[in-house]
Amino acid sequence: MQKVISYISENNDRYIEELKDFLRIPSISALPENKSDMNNCAEFVAGKLRDAGMNRVQVYQTEGHPIVYGEWLGAPGKPTILFYGHYDVQPVDPIELWNNPPFEPVINDGKIWARGATDDKGQVLVHIKSVEAFFKANGSLPLNVKFLLEGEEEIGSESLAPFIAQNKDMLKSDVVLISDTSLFAKGVPTITYGLRGLCYMEVEVIGPNKDLHSGSFGGAVANPVNVLAQMIAKLHDKNGKIAIPEFYKDVLNLTKKERESFKKLKFSEKKYAKELGVAELMGEKGFSTLERVWARPTLDCNGIFGGFTGSGAKTIIPSKATAKISMRLVPNQDPNKIAKLFTKFFKSLAPKSVKVNVKYLHGGYPVVVPLEHKAIVSGADAMAKAFGKKTVFMREGGSIPIVVDFVKNLNAPAVLMGLGLDSENLHSPNEHFDLNHFRLGIESSAYFIDEFSKD
Amino acid sequence: MQKVISYISENNDRYIEELKDFLRIPSISALPENKSDMNNCAEFVAGKLRDAGMNRVQVYQTEGHPIVYGEWLGAPGKPTILFYGHYDVQPVDPIELWNNPPFEPVINDGKIWARGATDDKGQVLVHIKSVEAFFKANGSLPLNVKFLLEGEEEIGSESLAPFIAQNKDMLKSDVVLISDTSLFAKGVPTITYGLRGLCYMEVEVIGPNKDLHSGSFGGAVANPVNVLAQMIAKLHDKNGKIAIPEFYKDVLNLTKKERESFKKLKFSEKKYAKELGVAELMGEKGFSTLERVWARPTLDCNGIFGGFTGSGAKTIIPSKATAKISMRLVPNQDPNKIAKLFTKFFKSLAPKSVKVNVKYLHGGYPVVVPLEHKAIVSGADAMAKAFGKKTVFMREGGSIPIVVDFVKNLNAPAVLMGLGLDSENLHSPNEHFDLNHFRLGIESSAYFIDEFSKD
Repeated sequence: MQKVISYISENNDRYIEELKDFLRIPSISALPENKSDMNNCAEFVAGKLRDAGMNRVQVYQTEGHPIVYGEWLGAPGKPTILFYGHYDVQPVDPIELWNNPPFEPVINDGKIWARGATDDKGQVLVHIKSVEAFFKANGSLPLNVKFLLEGEEEIGSESLAPFIAQNKDMLKSDVVLISDTSLFAKGVPTITYGLRGLCYMEVEVIGPNKDLHSGSFGGAVANPVNVLAQMIAKLHDKNGKIAIPEFYKDVLNLTKKERESFKKLKFSEKKYAKELGVAELMGEKGFSTLERVWARPTLDCNGIFGGFTGSGAKTIIPSKATAKISMRLVPNQDPNKIAKLFTKFFKSLAPKSVKVNVKYLHGGYPVVVPLEHKAIVSGADAMAKAFGKKTVFMREGGSIPIVVDFVKNLNAPAVLMGLGLDSENLHSPNEHFDLNHFRLGIESSAYFIDEFSKD
Repeated sequence: MQKVISYISENNDRYIEELKDFLRIPSISALPENKSDMNNCAEFVAGKLRDAGMNRVQVYQTEGHPIVYGEWLGAPGKPTILFYGHYDVQPVDPIELWNNPPFEPVINDGKIWARGATDDKGQVLVHIKSVEAFFKANGSLPLNVKFLLEGEEEIGSESLAPFIAQNKDMLKSDVVLISDTSLFAKGVPTITYGLRGLCYMEVEVIGPNKDLHSGSFGGAVANPVNVLAQMIAKLHDKNGKIAIPEFYKDVLNLTKKERESFKKLKFSEKKYAKELGVAELMGEKGFSTLERVWARPTLDCNGIFGGFTGSGAKTIIPSKATAKISMRLVPNQDPNKIAKLFTKFFKSLAPKSVKVNVKYLHGGYPVVVPLEHKAIVSGADAMAKAFGKKTVFMREGGSIPIVVDFVKNLNAPAVLMGLGLDSENLHSPNEHFDLNHFRLGIESSAYFIDEFSKD
């Protein structure tokens, strides 16, 4: 390993130049005018995989943007890692807020500034370069590797799930390693071992058959906005628990070890609240903020609309009111089951004087990998070696649907070795990536290859 | 009176022709391109007042559209009636839904079809023609009359309130007679003797300083939409009463006589609910629907907005949520006082984790004229004579701000002798006016002049 780590150290400047080349390609998946940039970027990535030593590299055309696949299977009997990442980036609007043109990477303050720097080009290159380092330093890899790099992550990964389902054998692996999330804090090695799922509903409360004059009709009929508000209010009890019957039935409670490990994390509720601009935090009673966000199910209105919302006054009783209501789920809740429970309960809250429609827009399963799993242990050890600190374990409150696709289709655990920081403006102007994390990431990836190759 | 009524009968066809001329002028107050039509219409009305025998007629220019005034004060010592109405009309969109061009009046099925037919040109002409009939038939009037006809009723009557305030002496009168509302039902003589007031609020609940990802932050902070819903839910108790402390303190309860008179009205809750498309009506317990709409205060959300409301799913915790909430008030509630009570109570409902802004957008006072008042009794008797039926008494759930302006500035009771029907498509395509009500209206107005002239 010493030779590999030395090689990484010696080649760091070149890696940064290669990252710059990668960042110069405006691979915005959402915009039709960037279609040829997407193809160029896929070819660029394929070239990097070849340079890194992959002996089979292929660019697969899809209905959307190409999927780039590469493999080296020269270690029979040894485990296989599947590296996943994406080469597409978010649009750059509002362009006027960028300090530098988004596709002209600049190095400043130890960071590289460009669209895609942290999400996800910087983190993708990390793994390609760690593999390359093994070949250059040792001439070989101690295990098998596969790369799956898509170009539609920022637009819903529509082509990916069918691709995975159709290529299960090709993608078969013992672990899926993903670097597309964040470190708990700057310089703190972090493994994310759980994600929440999602159940997203749309509800509609319909009253009179048209907007009514609130003077002529106020007092005669149920007002759909007032009724919807009353129904939403009943979705939580006074302790902040979700009031849907059987909602918590399948919830896998946090283990003592997990709660203790969360408690040890440096996290200031006061600072967090201040950053969000709120006087105090709020949520389900009996749980810390990190527990609530990472490992407890929640219910939030994502939007609400009804009646007159322009400036000034319009005196109507709206004919209807709608809301988007989504629930974050934790293992082992099933989004389809939760959708049914929600629908039944929500409808039961309505007075006879209104009609209620409930639509299940979409759902995603929660995921958790036990802390004791070899993949998690190897990941934690690898990062600890590179960063020179003990690795912390976190979960992520959001959902990453592709992780579920991997886990369900390949029956392999996912290790989220995120190297970004939440503060690195992903999806916003002035995106950047800490170059120290870039280097430590390459080392972590190399140590992971080493660790995971051992029995 | 026999001669006056005969004259009205004999001249009915001519009246209809004059109404057609009136309806041909596209006096849309809202549209700048109809400015000269507005002036033409004001001159037309002034001419009609001169023809009717007014000995002083003046068109007053305002910052908006002209106010037409006319008077005949040839009966010293006798009471004075002030007739109010408006010569402006609503826009005609959507024009494609009209069966006939809106400014080419057509007679069909005993009705005249054109924009402004019922609101308010037909009802304005009624009073001009009843006065004319007195002069033509008897050579004189048994009391003094004044006409105040504005051109901004459909756009907020902005010039009228200052005009009234500045011309109190000129406008001084013993009763204000207004025909700009509706009969309780076809052929049923109706006096409206009360109007509700209004207190219109805008509220804002502010949580985090930006929209947050509902995955990464769901469970950490109070969601402004959920909080707003919970706050709105607390504005009513389970009996449909408004939960604001002291809200009902100044409410003048319905008299036994009023409740009995409402009870006698032919009103089918079932039919009413069916027309509104609701399975059942709903409101404050212990009161009939007519009582609730006409004479009980109510609280309705007129609009609500927050977060993502487009199609599909966006997983955010919105930074803020807003609602328009208005209350209909009854005598003797004071809108300014109610605004303060609402603000105090609403703010008290908020958890510490959000900020709340409450804005008082505008208010209007409720009005009621006692059923025993001479003006009400004369109006009821006059309509009963013309229609050949007992007059019914109703209130109106909406507010008519100008009525309050008259009552407060002139200290005179207002009698609402509405001759329209709610079904006559005012403000909609295919507006019309029942020609039978037009004729009976002229007779009612004549009888009122006769009745009100008596001591």
